[in-house]
Amino acid sequence: MDQNTNFPPADDLKIRWKRIRQSLLENRMEACLISSGVNIYYLTGHIFGGYVYLTADDDPIYFFQRPAGWDHPQAVPIRKPEDIPALLKERGMKLPGNIGLEADQITYNEYIRLQAVFNPATATNVTPILRKVRMIKTPWEIQQFRISAKKHAEAYRHIPSYFRPGMTDIELQNEIEREMRSKGSIGLFRAFGNNMDIYMGSLLSGDNAETPSPFDFALGGGGLHPSLPIGANGSILRTGNAVMVDMAGNYTAYITDMTRTFSVGKLSEKAYRAHQVSIDMNNRLMNTAQPGTSCAEIYNWSLQMAEEAGLGDCFMGTRQQAKFVGHGVGIEINELPVMTSRSQDLLQPGMVFAFEPKFVLHETGAVGIENTYLVTENGLEKLTVFEEEIREL
Amino acid sequence: MDQNTNFPPADDLKIRWKRIRQSLLENRMEACLISSGVNIYYLTGHIFGGYVYLTADDDPIYFFQRPAGWDHPQAVPIRKPEDIPALLKERGMKLPGNIGLEADQITYNEYIRLQAVFNPATATNVTPILRKVRMIKTPWEIQQFRISAKKHAEAYRHIPSYFRPGMTDIELQNEIEREMRSKGSIGLFRAFGNNMDIYMGSLLSGDNAETPSPFDFALGGGGLHPSLPIGANGSILRTGNAVMVDMAGNYTAYITDMTRTFSVGKLSEKAYRAHQVSIDMNNRLMNTAQPGTSCAEIYNWSLQMAEEAGLGDCFMGTRQQAKFVGHGVGIEINELPVMTSRSQDLLQPGMVFAFEPKFVLHETGAVGIENTYLVTENGLEKLTVFEEEIREL
Repeated sequence: MDQNTNFPPADDLKIRWKRIRQSLLENRMEACLISSGVNIYYLTGHIFGGYVYLTADDDPIYFFQRPAGWDHPQAVPIRKPEDIPALLKERGMKLPGNIGLEADQITYNEYIRLQAVFNPATATNVTPILRKVRMIKTPWEIQQFRISAKKHAEAYRHIPSYFRPGMTDIELQNEIEREMRSKGSIGLFRAFGNNMDIYMGSLLSGDNAETPSPFDFALGGGGLHPSLPIGANGSILRTGNAVMVDMAGNYTAYITDMTRTFSVGKLSEKAYRAHQVSIDMNNRLMNTAQPGTSCAEIYNWSLQMAEEAGLGDCFMGTRQQAKFVGHGVGIEINELPVMTSRSQDLLQPGMVFAFEPKFVLHETGAVGIENTYLVTENGLEKLTVFEEEIREL
Repeated sequence: MDQNTNFPPADDLKIRWKRIRQSLLENRMEACLISSGVNIYYLTGHIFGGYVYLTADDDPIYFFQRPAGWDHPQAVPIRKPEDIPALLKERGMKLPGNIGLEADQITYNEYIRLQAVFNPATATNVTPILRKVRMIKTPWEIQQFRISAKKHAEAYRHIPSYFRPGMTDIELQNEIEREMRSKGSIGLFRAFGNNMDIYMGSLLSGDNAETPSPFDFALGGGGLHPSLPIGANGSILRTGNAVMVDMAGNYTAYITDMTRTFSVGKLSEKAYRAHQVSIDMNNRLMNTAQPGTSCAEIYNWSLQMAEEAGLGDCFMGTRQQAKFVGHGVGIEINELPVMTSRSQDLLQPGMVFAFEPKFVLHETGAVGIENTYLVTENGLEKLTVFEEEIREL
């Protein structure tokens, strides 16, 4: 197997395969064929061009087209997916009667093509199974979050040193990006679903924090250009502005999500009060959440606390308010579970999620914090440990 | 209409709509419903969450879900795509008998859902139509490339000043990223097709240039982490190494693609010779290409020149050799046409494409140049004007 510590050990992959196999059986799928990059990475620890074929009872086969010459015990070169059935038959494996395909991830035409490869099998959507399995992290995955979280906090420590009076939001973000890249940030920010574009994260300050975004992130911002309307928009960071930094901690394939708020000079009393409510919500979460806690309940009491503080109209935005207050993280920034009023999920050990109660204040900007938490048998462990008060730049 | 010069003027959008309408008619589609970010941007100059509905005879309607409160004369708020038919009927528009959907861009489940919205219409793949129309750039789009190209060249001018002996490939890349971001690079690097991940571009040096990649870019590289196996891998830039810089010039939504080669100390005689062959190929292209030139022919004579120079075995890679030598650029890095032996495309005025004949030399790294060219009535115009010789760092 792969020796490099950047690769998951065999034991860890076996946990994943076993969970998926069990779920395939429960959903009456005899096999699945995986072709999205994130799920290939999850199943193998590699990114390759090709397909992972996993049956309900065998270890997966890595059918690959690229990279050329790849040498791996489970890898089998193919020219095209249509080669797969004959290769399965050569191995004495029967073709599945029901095959799982990633209906929420691959294009219509790719799905139709793969369906034809296994004709006359029935095809079923395997995306929800993978999303559910990926929701519960393995021991190696949890280690990866710890690596990301530690470096993420270290990067935020340097933020005040990069501030200069008169600089713009994007200038400060650029310095943070450089700091993160120089310490090993992979840069790429993966998200589930189409049209969830962003570049390494967001920095919001002043009125720009109110600008609604077309994307399903917690907050918006106008962005630098109409082709990427999210985050910093080139505004000068002025005295009295809050500066919310929400960059992705992607130092491994597993992204930690952490937001901290800085200030240029002093903020309004309301801003400090709202920020404290966000800290209080994080503390309440730490003190009460445990396996079995309802994700919907977490959203509901967060909204209630915001309203009781008289801050309901600026909770999770003003002109556009996000209807969630937390979300699973992993290889993608928006994994399961989601802390929203309609969630059916209960917390389970091994879940890793971000909790981000935020307030947007006219003229000031956004305040609040976001942490990434691991659900353990006993409650929560905070992965993103870093001072939570508003720090003056 | 939108006043900001970052938005395309109405005249320019009308050119696009007209071309698509004509193509819909030719392909017997009465309408198309567009939901991919890049095509929404192409059709409207905006990114929004929702759908563009374009019939063969009317201007498009922008059905949007987000951002909240968007005020635009063509924009109509919806909660879900299922709202669209009733809204069309309200406007006295009949439902189409044949609807174009983006079968090569949207997921299987999204396609099925949209198909059901227009049931019992026949659905046809509209992706190839959009790709063909987008292949011929409008006047405003060409302006955008000029802006990107100028800033792209300006960024490369600074590269030598960032080099320090003993630094790694990724450290140098990080400085270039910072330079580009500080001058307005949007950062996000859009590509057509699944599993084409990269972060702002690639810097290749030494043996890493030979590492095959799973992605369909011209060259590979091992990358920083198995979850993003492309580009710089943390190697120290050593005397005798070529340093190939191939970053995306995405200062507007239109990406210029430009590669230049630098050196640490002097390179081998073979490296300079191979680099000159790449320059010669670019000069031949400039001197011969014009409307009507076959894209396949461009590939074929490039390969032939490489072979005649005794460099066929290191042309476009060694362990894995790309089978194309150029590609259209635009909102995405990999648009039409493609300079490959199987291309049926002929050059047409308004095409913008990158030409990137490269050689990978064992131990040295990659050499060669890449320029972005505009096809005019009279031949080619080089957009990425910047010195082409190998520059010693």
